Amino acid sequence: MPDPVAPRRLPSILLLSLVPVASWFIVRPLVSPIPPLPALHVSFGLSIFAFVGTLYLVPALGPTFVKANLKGRDLLKTYSTPIPESLGLVCASVYILLLIIFIPFAFSSITLSDAYTVHEGIVIKEFPHYQLSVYLSSILSLLIATMLGLLDDIFDIRWRHKVPIPIIASIPLLMVYYAERGNTHIVVPIPLRPLLGTLLNLGPLYYLYMSLLSTFATNSINILAGINGAEASQAVIIALSVIANDLLYLPWPAYFHIPLHLLGGQADLEVGGVWRAGMAYGSTQLVERHLFSLYFMLPLVGVCAGFLYHNWYPARAFPGDTLCYVTGMAFAVVGIQAHFSKTLLLFFLPQIFNFVLSCPQLFGLVPCPRHRVPRFDADTNLLHPSKALFLRPPSRLATFVLRVLAALGLTELTIHPQSGMILEATNLTILNFLLLRLGPMAEKRLVQTLIATQVTGSVVAFAVRYGLANLVYDGDRR
Amino acid sequence: MPDPVAPRRLPSILLLSLVPVASWFIVRPLVSPIPPLPALHVSFGLSIFAFVGTLYLVPALGPTFVKANLKGRDLLKTYSTPIPESLGLVCASVYILLLIIFIPFAFSSITLSDAYTVHEGIVIKEFPHYQLSVYLSSILSLLIATMLGLLDDIFDIRWRHKVPIPIIASIPLLMVYYAERGNTHIVVPIPLRPLLGTLLNLGPLYYLYMSLLSTFATNSINILAGINGAEASQAVIIALSVIANDLLYLPWPAYFHIPLHLLGGQADLEVGGVWRAGMAYGSTQLVERHLFSLYFMLPLVGVCAGFLYHNWYPARAFPGDTLCYVTGMAFAVVGIQAHFSKTLLLFFLPQIFNFVLSCPQLFGLVPCPRHRVPRFDADTNLLHPSKALFLRPPSRLATFVLRVLAALGLTELTIHPQSGMILEATNLTILNFLLLRLGPMAEKRLVQTLIATQVTGSVVAFAVRYGLANLVYDGDRR
Repeated sequence: MPDPVAPRRLPSILLLSLVPVASWFIVRPLVSPIPPLPALHVSFGLSIFAFVGTLYLVPALGPTFVKANLKGRDLLKTYSTPIPESLGLVCASVYILLLIIFIPFAFSSITLSDAYTVHEGIVIKEFPHYQLSVYLSSILSLLIATMLGLLDDIFDIRWRHKVPIPIIASIPLLMVYYAERGNTHIVVPIPLRPLLGTLLNLGPLYYLYMSLLSTFATNSINILAGINGAEASQAVIIALSVIANDLLYLPWPAYFHIPLHLLGGQADLEVGGVWRAGMAYGSTQLVERHLFSLYFMLPLVGVCAGFLYHNWYPARAFPGDTLCYVTGMAFAVVGIQAHFSKTLLLFFLPQIFNFVLSCPQLFGLVPCPRHRVPRFDADTNLLHPSKALFLRPPSRLATFVLRVLAALGLTELTIHPQSGMILEATNLTILNFLLLRLGPMAEKRLVQTLIATQVTGSVVAFAVRYGLANLVYDGDRR
Repeated sequence: MPDPVAPRRLPSILLLSLVPVASWFIVRPLVSPIPPLPALHVSFGLSIFAFVGTLYLVPALGPTFVKANLKGRDLLKTYSTPIPESLGLVCASVYILLLIIFIPFAFSSITLSDAYTVHEGIVIKEFPHYQLSVYLSSILSLLIATMLGLLDDIFDIRWRHKVPIPIIASIPLLMVYYAERGNTHIVVPIPLRPLLGTLLNLGPLYYLYMSLLSTFATNSINILAGINGAEASQAVIIALSVIANDLLYLPWPAYFHIPLHLLGGQADLEVGGVWRAGMAYGSTQLVERHLFSLYFMLPLVGVCAGFLYHNWYPARAFPGDTLCYVTGMAFAVVGIQAHFSKTLLLFFLPQIFNFVLSCPQLFGLVPCPRHRVPRFDADTNLLHPSKALFLRPPSRLATFVLRVLAALGLTELTIHPQSGMILEATNLTILNFLLLRLGPMAEKRLVQTLIATQVTGSVVAFAVRYGLANLVYDGDRR
């Protein structure tokens, strides 16, 4: 019988053929005629390197992690061979190193003065010091998130203590935002404008909002975990959704429109046109912001996809908290710095559902076991919803909440036949909910279902953002 | 018998009385009349917090480190109780967190527009984006150094592999320097000017020089280690020397001169005078650079001094590689960013001596055991020079080098009485050299001798910098 946790083999010839492709994208901006958006070419090339690098480094460094006691048992398998844990550290290191190496490409003379000035919509004349500060503070936040994720993996911090950790990681963002006297205004939705005006200055609340966004993005991925491939696949899909959204704002040579009135929008969505800079309608700032977002999202897809190859069922490597921290922070960073935090939250629909569903357990209303992952049945190789056992009778509030959730089909209760008291409830996570509604399934099938849910969430998000949002917002976006 | 490694008690009343003092320095710039250099007040206040915070956090977190297997035996003691290791991580975390919290103080409107513009010498009118980028990239380098130090402690990287690690940490510095099109010129010493001109453009070599400086600063502290308090005390003295040097360039209300002609200088050194901005002679740039250096050095002294209290003989906590990495990187950062790398190197005289002396062992000419710390004699409680044993006869070159070093009194050889072949040599470190020349001594005495050597080195450095340097450089410093 082959070793179930031996590193997965890599199709080396296929992968190494990516190296010249990636190199071409990196050197392309140096070759005349300079393409439009030269830095984006470099970013794409580096992202391919991120993918290939992670693919090779994860299995290579696995044994080192096991030796340093960074290892774990796969709870949902029949074997108990230790599997290297916290390999998200490798992803984070590759990711951050490439983001740092990218600095001169994004900000040097080739990519700015010579190239940008040829496009009317996005003229830049002087060195973008402000963007460099923003870029650096973002990397700093990512690095702190990585560091804290690693500390969490080493010292095994209890979850109640680690919820506020992302706030620490968001401090550089907030500090630079404050030092640069960043805008703390938000655009008020149309129905509320008679009350609040068009723009509302949130002041210090805006900083609170930014820290909470980091906390949410990070922890919401961290609590939707436990089965092979869950964390990395969520990250890949959210990142791809953000990328799709960013691409709408770039100056494309083509021009087309999407018939949004079919989805309930007031007007069709017009995309593309070099001179209009996509949906940015000629706004330099919007193009820059979405380029910034792309620079962070492309390599993230690279490292997460590379890691997913080894983390896919049956997993050869575990992400640890490090991966959730760094990916969550990356999403928060682009949402905050590129000013599309509301759109970003729309891509987190399954995470929001999972978080809201988890609240009774997270806030102590319902007992919360150490692991809420589904229960593994070794005989059938299927996963079943896991249950939280009430050691003490539930409070009246808990009983009420659980009965409502059960009525909505979100949990299943075991009731004492005589007293009618709740003895057990299925753990309140999206994974247990999927198992409850769709029946027991294999781990691989469950992660595929989760991926399908996430993709559906993103489709809904786009419909809401570019269809329904026109009902409550006009074109004024800041 | 009391536990020899129980945490040292803290004089709490004394320490807590520092908190209001520190808080006063932090709020002082908000109180009218605004003092000159308001951000420096805040930096000083935060440094006191760094000191107090480290004092309390190191013993509090020690058990957590031991539990996470970050612990070590003290090789030079009779007891073998495990002592928490890598506590430099606590220092680094406090240090970096305070540097980040300091960002808005250094760059916000209170400390800049309102205050600076009242001093003729240091007028600033617009937001110093460039300085913010430099500041952020410096923190990024420090954080990478911390991270790599921690990884080194966890994965126990072999020393040959870890020499280039600081180069990775210096990448953000280099990238930002490049992106900002930083100056790569150096001022040529007067005797070489007929050949090279006044200014020499080093181009890419300047970047090489910057990485090598980081590598040297980091590793030179890391190899001068092994006895209680060695790393932290070196860091404190070098940082205090840098601070003393920085203070010469600030606008002081007083005015005085140091009779440098007594030390061989061409003219007396004039210090102070608000309008002359100290030795900066009215140069905004020089004042800013030395303020930048102070912002990084003051909290470094705070954390290192706090740590030294627990690391002092007999040590209750070990620094790990993390402390050496972060302190070394901090020195490299200020040397590079504030443009006084040559002066900085003068403060590393004992480290340079130790490095040059170590070269035959580092480069494989002479056998290099895993630990080169002095040998502990448990009966007398004294340290003796440790020895490297030749398992194979030394090469002709090694024999020659060792004989020269022995003739200079830098090592002691054990020679085979018949063949005249070298059998053993004392390990080539400054600690063994001190023991060789001054005789066996207790560990505490040895670290005191090391401190005295370091202080002497700094005195010599100042004499060279402000006395002899006038012979090879004129006032033209860039």
